[in-house]
Amino acid sequence: MPDAPSIAQHTYPNGLVLVAEAMPGVQSAAFTLLLPAGAAYEAADRGGAASMLSEWITRGAGERDSRELLSALDNLGVNHGESAQTLHTSLAAATLGRNLIPALELFADIVLRPHLDDDEIEPIRALALQNLRSLEDDPGTKVIYELRRRHFPDPWGRPAPGTPEGVSALSPNELRAFHALAYRPNGAILGVAGAIDWPELRDAVGRLFGDWEPRLEPAVQERPTGPLRDHILRETQQIQIALAYPTATVASPDYYRARAAAAILGGYSSARLFTEVREKRGLCYSVYASYESQRDRAAILCYAGTSADRAQQTLDVTLAEVERLGRSGVELEELETMRAGLKSSLVMAQESSMSRSGSLASDWFHLGRVRSIGEISSALDALTPESVSDYAASQAANALTILTLGPNPLVVPK
Amino acid sequence: MPDAPSIAQHTYPNGLVLVAEAMPGVQSAAFTLLLPAGAAYEAADRGGAASMLSEWITRGAGERDSRELLSALDNLGVNHGESAQTLHTSLAAATLGRNLIPALELFADIVLRPHLDDDEIEPIRALALQNLRSLEDDPGTKVIYELRRRHFPDPWGRPAPGTPEGVSALSPNELRAFHALAYRPNGAILGVAGAIDWPELRDAVGRLFGDWEPRLEPAVQERPTGPLRDHILRETQQIQIALAYPTATVASPDYYRARAAAAILGGYSSARLFTEVREKRGLCYSVYASYESQRDRAAILCYAGTSADRAQQTLDVTLAEVERLGRSGVELEELETMRAGLKSSLVMAQESSMSRSGSLASDWFHLGRVRSIGEISSALDALTPESVSDYAASQAANALTILTLGPNPLVVPK
Repeated sequence: MPDAPSIAQHTYPNGLVLVAEAMPGVQSAAFTLLLPAGAAYEAADRGGAASMLSEWITRGAGERDSRELLSALDNLGVNHGESAQTLHTSLAAATLGRNLIPALELFADIVLRPHLDDDEIEPIRALALQNLRSLEDDPGTKVIYELRRRHFPDPWGRPAPGTPEGVSALSPNELRAFHALAYRPNGAILGVAGAIDWPELRDAVGRLFGDWEPRLEPAVQERPTGPLRDHILRETQQIQIALAYPTATVASPDYYRARAAAAILGGYSSARLFTEVREKRGLCYSVYASYESQRDRAAILCYAGTSADRAQQTLDVTLAEVERLGRSGVELEELETMRAGLKSSLVMAQESSMSRSGSLASDWFHLGRVRSIGEISSALDALTPESVSDYAASQAANALTILTLGPNPLVVPK
Repeated sequence: MPDAPSIAQHTYPNGLVLVAEAMPGVQSAAFTLLLPAGAAYEAADRGGAASMLSEWITRGAGERDSRELLSALDNLGVNHGESAQTLHTSLAAATLGRNLIPALELFADIVLRPHLDDDEIEPIRALALQNLRSLEDDPGTKVIYELRRRHFPDPWGRPAPGTPEGVSALSPNELRAFHALAYRPNGAILGVAGAIDWPELRDAVGRLFGDWEPRLEPAVQERPTGPLRDHILRETQQIQIALAYPTATVASPDYYRARAAAAILGGYSSARLFTEVREKRGLCYSVYASYESQRDRAAILCYAGTSADRAQQTLDVTLAEVERLGRSGVELEELETMRAGLKSSLVMAQESSMSRSGSLASDWFHLGRVRSIGEISSALDALTPESVSDYAASQAANALTILTLGPNPLVVPK
C-alpha cells in the first residue's frame, strides 16, 4: 500500500498543534479540534460541565447571536458536531474545501469568543438533564459508561453526560471558570484533511488562533474506583453485560499485539465472541470486544445484551473466551483474518476527510506524530501467532471489571 | 460542481440491473444489492420472515459452511451488513478494489445458493426475538416503526423486525418459500462504486448472477391502516412523539420542493423545529424532521423525545411549526441555507464508495436512472421561496398521523 501522500504539521508559539493532510481528488475538507477539556477535568461534584459548555459555546459567539451563528454555519454547508468526552471536548466539522477557512473563522469565535450568556443556561441545563434521562432508556449505552467509571481510576472513567446532581448545581460562573481553565491552546490539536492548501491553512490558523493565551495544565488527583464486580438494578427487558481488562496503550511497543488480541476476541464477524455467543448458541444479537486507549492506560471492553434466561450462559461463555485467549493464544489463520480486516478498514477510513481529520488529531495526541498507512501495515505484517499469543498470555492474570445491569444479578466469578 | 464522472449501467436478460460508478483516486470498492424481498412481501401473520432470512442466508452457502463463509469474507477484509427493510432486503459490502470480484463471488453463493440448514433456525429465531425485545428498551426507534405502521397503508409500513407471533411461528419451509418467492433478479438492483473496472465487473456479474431465474412479481393486497391518533402505553422515562404526513415521492416533479420543505422544517441545525423546540425552549435534546420515499408514496416524519412535564408543549410547538410551514411558507434566507446544506452533503456522500453504491441503487429504484450531482444541484438552484411555499401550502390540508409513547397520553388535536 502506498504511504499517506502529504502530511504537514506546525506547532504555534502558544502550543496549538496543526496537523493536516491534503487528499487528492477530494472536494470536501474536514477538521477535528481536540481541546483538553474533557469530563476528567471537571470538579468531582460538578459532573456535566464539559458537556454543558460544549453546547453553550455554540449559543452565540463573536459578533453573532445564537441563531446567526447556526445560520452562518448552515450557510457554509458545514456539517458539525460538538461533544465532550472523558479526556477531550471535540469540535468536528466537514464542508466543501472552499468553505474550510470561513468555517474555521466561525469556530475561532466559538472557541475563543463565546458569549456564554446567562439567558441560555436554563435551556442548556434542561437539555443536559434530558440527555441523562434518555440514557435510562438506553441501557446498552449506560452499562458501558458505568463500566468505564468502575474500571479506570477516577477521573479517567467519568461519563461525559455527567450526573443529575452536577448538572443541576452548575452555575454560569462555574461553567465560565471551566472554559477559562480548560479551553487552552497548549494541549489542543487541530487535525485537518481533504481539499486543503497547506500554506494558506497554516497562515489562517495562525491568524485565527495565534493570540489564544496558554494556561497551566490543571493538576489531576487520581484515585482508585471500582467495585470490580457490580450489578445495577433496572427493570429492563434485557440484561446488559459489560467487562473490561487492561491492555497496552497506542504508544506502547505492545500496541499492535494488543489490538490483534482484541480483534481476534471480538472485533469482526467471524471473531471468537461472535462465533461462540451469537452464531453457535444464538444467545444474543449484539456482542463484541473493542479496544480503547487513553494516553496512560488502555482497556479491552466486552459487551453483550441478552434476555434474562440466556444472560448467565452469555456471561459464562464470554468469560471463557477471555480466559481461552490468554491460555491458548491465537492461530495463524485468525491472525491473517484480523490483518485483512484492519488493513481494509484503514484504507476505507483514509478515504473519508472527516474520519481522516479525526485520525490525524488522535495520532498526534497519542504519539506526537502521525502514522502512515504503510507504517501500520508493516507493523501488522510483522505480527506472528507466537508474538500475539505471548502478549495475550501476559494479560490473562489482569484483573477483570465485570458489570451487569438488569432486573436480576448474575453469578460472577470472584 | 462537476458532473458525476463515469456511470455505467447494464440490464441482464433475467432482469438484474447493474449500475456502477468508477471513482478516481479511490482504493476501496463497495456494493449495495437491493433485493425485492422486504417485510412488505411477508404473509401478514409471519412478520419477521425477511429479517430472519437475511440472517439465515449467511449461515453457510455454496461450498462453505457458516464459519467458512464468514471467515472467507473476513479474509477479504469485507465490511458487510445484511438487513431487511420494508421494501427491500439490502446486502451491502465494502472492501479493497482488488477484492471486489472475489467478494461478489461469495455474495452470489449467499443469494443463490444459501444452505438454509434446519439446524441454524433456532439460534436465528432466538436472535430475532432478542432483537424485538431490545426494541422495547429503545423507545425512540420503536415509536418510528409504529408510526410507519399506522401511517402507510399495509403492507407498506410494516416494521422489518416483525412480530413476536410471526417470528415464533415461522417454519423452515415457510422461510425457504419466501426465499424462492422474493429473492429474484427481476426487481433486484446492484449498485457498485469505487475502484472498479467496468468491463470486468459487467462480465463478472453476468457470470455470477446470469443463471438466476426470474420469478413473477408477487401480488400485494393493500389495505388501510391507522389509527391516525394513537398512544402506546409504556413505563418509559421519556415520552416519544412522532408524526407523519404525506409528501411528494422521489419520482414526482414536486420532489425538490418537498425535500426543501422537509429540510427547512427540521433537517439541519438552524431549521425551524430545532430552533423552536430545542434552542429557544430547551424542550428536548433530539428533535428532527426527515423525508422518506417509497416508489408510490412518501412522507415527512417528525420526531421528538422529551420528559413528561415538557411533552405536551413539545407536541404543541411541533404541530404549530408544521402548520406555520403550510400557512406562511418559507423565506429566501432559509432556502439558501437549505441549498448550501444539501449540496455540501451531496458532495460528501459522493466521496464515500459505500454511500455512493447505495445512492446508485436507490436512484435506479426510484427513477430507473442515476442523477448526477450537477442535475441535483441545478434543480436545487431552480427553487424559489414562492415555489416551495406553494407546495408547502398544498400539503397543509393533508391528514397527520400522530403517535405518542410513554406512561401518559397527551392532548392531541382531532
